[in-house]
Amino acid sequence: MTIQTVSTNKSYGGVQGVYRHASQATGTDMVFSVYVPPHADGAKLPVVWYLSGLTCTHANVTEKGEFRKACAELGLIFVAPDTSPRGPDVPGDPNNAYDFGLGAGFYVDATQEPFARNYRMWSYVTDELPKLVAGHFPVDAKRQSIMGHSMGGHGALTVALRNPHRYRAASAFAPIVAPSVVPWGIKALTGYLGPNKDAWRSHDTVALIEDGAKFSSFLVDVGEADNFLKEQLKPELLETACSKAGIPLTLRRQPGYDHSYYFISTFMGDHLHWHAEKLKG
Amino acid sequence: MTIQTVSTNKSYGGVQGVYRHASQATGTDMVFSVYVPPHADGAKLPVVWYLSGLTCTHANVTEKGEFRKACAELGLIFVAPDTSPRGPDVPGDPNNAYDFGLGAGFYVDATQEPFARNYRMWSYVTDELPKLVAGHFPVDAKRQSIMGHSMGGHGALTVALRNPHRYRAASAFAPIVAPSVVPWGIKALTGYLGPNKDAWRSHDTVALIEDGAKFSSFLVDVGEADNFLKEQLKPELLETACSKAGIPLTLRRQPGYDHSYYFISTFMGDHLHWHAEKLKG
Repeated sequence: MTIQTVSTNKSYGGVQGVYRHASQATGTDMVFSVYVPPHADGAKLPVVWYLSGLTCTHANVTEKGEFRKACAELGLIFVAPDTSPRGPDVPGDPNNAYDFGLGAGFYVDATQEPFARNYRMWSYVTDELPKLVAGHFPVDAKRQSIMGHSMGGHGALTVALRNPHRYRAASAFAPIVAPSVVPWGIKALTGYLGPNKDAWRSHDTVALIEDGAKFSSFLVDVGEADNFLKEQLKPELLETACSKAGIPLTLRRQPGYDHSYYFISTFMGDHLHWHAEKLKG
Repeated sequence: MTIQTVSTNKSYGGVQGVYRHASQATGTDMVFSVYVPPHADGAKLPVVWYLSGLTCTHANVTEKGEFRKACAELGLIFVAPDTSPRGPDVPGDPNNAYDFGLGAGFYVDATQEPFARNYRMWSYVTDELPKLVAGHFPVDAKRQSIMGHSMGGHGALTVALRNPHRYRAASAFAPIVAPSVVPWGIKALTGYLGPNKDAWRSHDTVALIEDGAKFSSFLVDVGEADNFLKEQLKPELLETACSKAGIPLTLRRQPGYDHSYYFISTFMGDHLHWHAEKLKG
């Protein structure tokens, strides 16, 4: 597996890089970013995975996420994948909507045509990319954690719940927690996985918890001025599910904050410190 | 003088806003951003002006500058103007080059046609916009400072040298310090001010210092991996001029850093803390 360097920039004493590779999972070229903090020669560092939301590429959080200062201080590698396969031959939303297809892979392996060939973001972020990153960067694979925003919060929580021994921490900004019952999720899961809702449950945080999945604890921030809070995010469903299942959840409702990177960047430092505590040693 | 709110987003407990107004100085609509940190009702806060570099609008530093955390902690308002007039009737570079015309106003009042009507960025950033901002935001006009990047570093240093009693601090990232003798500057000053180099000296940091202008002290960071360092920036000329004139200069040559916002954001916190110290009381 080889990767091509798109760009590197020194930042906070470390290196922010952007890389491209030919993905077997998606059958396309994929671009991702990795920040490697300053570190001693030969050191292996914990890695935080960040899954982005609808319409985003790796670039949004890389430019606007304000994670590098904390990652440099805490010694964390930070990896940001893209949110879907891309390319002239990759099918997208029939109406070019923002919430399906390109930029909206929803972190599932599609089973439905014409998406099944390329839309394999679950395999990409849980298998192919971790191996690639471990092969090219000074990663301590025993110390990984995951976070995400909105659709990427959905991705982070479902990936964590299905791989509780791989990730020591999982957190989210404004996550979609119950895609099976909200418009964004219903559209995406129908399109990628088909109408049988049984197939959706392993890609729905609340359903996974109802079905017995466990995780050590979650940290979730939502903005009370987020326009998507009531219709798409529904954090109260996560609250109820975690409460019933005995999964510790710190859910913070932040007054005045919206769905944007101005919200994410404000609380990014909190999340990274929380992750770092769990990634120690 | 009225302003129109383009957007506001809560960030680090304060408000990041973007605003539009009809500028008398430039004869165009102008867009700028203001971050107001959390503060007590009725408080008047110090203000830091940030002048951007070639090709930028207010948006580059607003999205990628990573200034809000420090501004929130230090209680600083942060204002970012655009870098030129814009609009369908505004003349630009005849060849659409990036280094003259749109996005490249160089913080001068043009005297040459066809630029003299609109390209009045000196008046805009030193007179019109400060009055507008003071009228709409909780600014303590006695506590102002200024910083900038590249072309905006040139702007910040020249504005400070010609208004030493208005600005308590001035700093720059990778500034153009001697536009009269470097390609970017020669092109811009010729185009806006004409071929008589006597007219250039009041818009050239090194020339201003040679001609007797004073300032309390400067903080300047440059990246040693900046592709523009040797041909366009020439910080050694500022070092010599400040040394001869007895102006305290802290010039830091940062190994491995380039000209990008990855460089700026890394040292933004340092600069803001340095400004805040001088803006106290």
